[in-house]
Amino acid sequence: METLKIIKIGGNIIDNNKSLTDFLKEFSNLKGNKILVHGGGKSATKLANDMQVEVEMINGRRVTNKETLSIITMVYAGKINKNIIAKLQAYNCNSIGFSGADGNSIVSVKRPKKEVDFGFVGDVVKVNTKTTKLLINNNITPVFCAITHDKNGQLLNTNADTIAAELAIAFSVDFEVELYYCFEKNGVLSDINDDNSVIEIIQTSDVKELIIKNIISEGMLPKINNSINAINNNVKKVCIGKPAMLFQNNIKYTTII
Amino acid sequence: METLKIIKIGGNIIDNNKSLTDFLKEFSNLKGNKILVHGGGKSATKLANDMQVEVEMINGRRVTNKETLSIITMVYAGKINKNIIAKLQAYNCNSIGFSGADGNSIVSVKRPKKEVDFGFVGDVVKVNTKTTKLLINNNITPVFCAITHDKNGQLLNTNADTIAAELAIAFSVDFEVELYYCFEKNGVLSDINDDNSVIEIIQTSDVKELIIKNIISEGMLPKINNSINAINNNVKKVCIGKPAMLFQNNIKYTTII
Repeated sequence: METLKIIKIGGNIIDNNKSLTDFLKEFSNLKGNKILVHGGGKSATKLANDMQVEVEMINGRRVTNKETLSIITMVYAGKINKNIIAKLQAYNCNSIGFSGADGNSIVSVKRPKKEVDFGFVGDVVKVNTKTTKLLINNNITPVFCAITHDKNGQLLNTNADTIAAELAIAFSVDFEVELYYCFEKNGVLSDINDDNSVIEIIQTSDVKELIIKNIISEGMLPKINNSINAINNNVKKVCIGKPAMLFQNNIKYTTII
Repeated sequence: METLKIIKIGGNIIDNNKSLTDFLKEFSNLKGNKILVHGGGKSATKLANDMQVEVEMINGRRVTNKETLSIITMVYAGKINKNIIAKLQAYNCNSIGFSGADGNSIVSVKRPKKEVDFGFVGDVVKVNTKTTKLLINNNITPVFCAITHDKNGQLLNTNADTIAAELAIAFSVDFEVELYYCFEKNGVLSDINDDNSVIEIIQTSDVKELIIKNIISEGMLPKINNSINAINNNVKKVCIGKPAMLFQNNIKYTTII
């Protein structure tokens, strides 16, 4: 099977025009099949402020009401996604922007209201790879923003890490998938104050102990849970670290297998 | 050659959720190859007001400064385009949203500054049909918003009527293209006060006289110029009228041949 790299970038790259441009230039030169997934960064919050829409938070999580969904759709699928596509085209990386609605690629279901009503948040139920696979086979790179749909006309907000993991799982039928989570640290650190203390290999069976020892703590937990889910569902490996892990040798990062 | 319908809708459909939903339901049922092109409607102006960005106008034409381009990208490529795609998927019309940057489909050049600097406005120089053709051949409907790019990383604002005409011309190499401009009137009217006075057939050679007689006047001129350009470049016919012209018999509309 051919290899497919699924690469997720977040706010630390997106919020800075130079970081984003540098990243996209190197991304364009990456050989082989690839998909880019991007989060939203701070622009959505900034637009909400400009529009004087209050961002509702419950337990540190954004509540996606109707206005917030509209803002997210504008910022993620509009501003960020199209600017990424325009830059990639400038570097001769032919690409197409996707929400989960495009090509019916990612179908989700509105999260049921329990103690908390998160609003228009979607939990992924089905990934259809047919259209994106057609594009990949024609050397076109899909670029996903973190929006899905429920197949009944409703767009939904879905976590970008989760989208990357779900895509990775779905594509594992046809490709050897490598999932890369790019963020601001070198990976999972055994000492949070020492950026060189990267744990280079983590087996999914190690994770429980790392959580007990508080080495994997709150901020990292969703990424790790998505990684375990991916590995348990035929994704070949998940790498967590700075974007340089993709482009340079002798860079330390964490690989989960 | 197979037929391809390129259908442009504007503010009168987009600005009203019921009109849009009704239109998209019928559009979904249209047999054969099709492309949808949508304008922006009033949402961009509304967002500019909400953000307290002043819309700069010169001679009744919007000036696209940096902030306006950002708003247009958010509204056209984000909010409107993705909501259209989600609705089409609900009606089982598999579709993908496009700006001109996606798939490098529409390359434009920033309009040179003459008496007026229109800002980030793009005049189309090249339409690449390869990717959209691949999708059409796989029963996927491309949905274009009115944004292009310069292939150097810059998004540009381009008139939606022009985009529809340029797509129609480019696809005429491979298809018998029919271009439909949907708007609020029944077509070109010989008496502006009588909605039944539709001129059903206009030959491009008739247009000069119709302009002299003031039957084709200011608001209609850009559409007519785009239509003439299309007909002169191998587009089979251009139809102008209410959306019903696409879905019903015994509806009057104007056909330009």
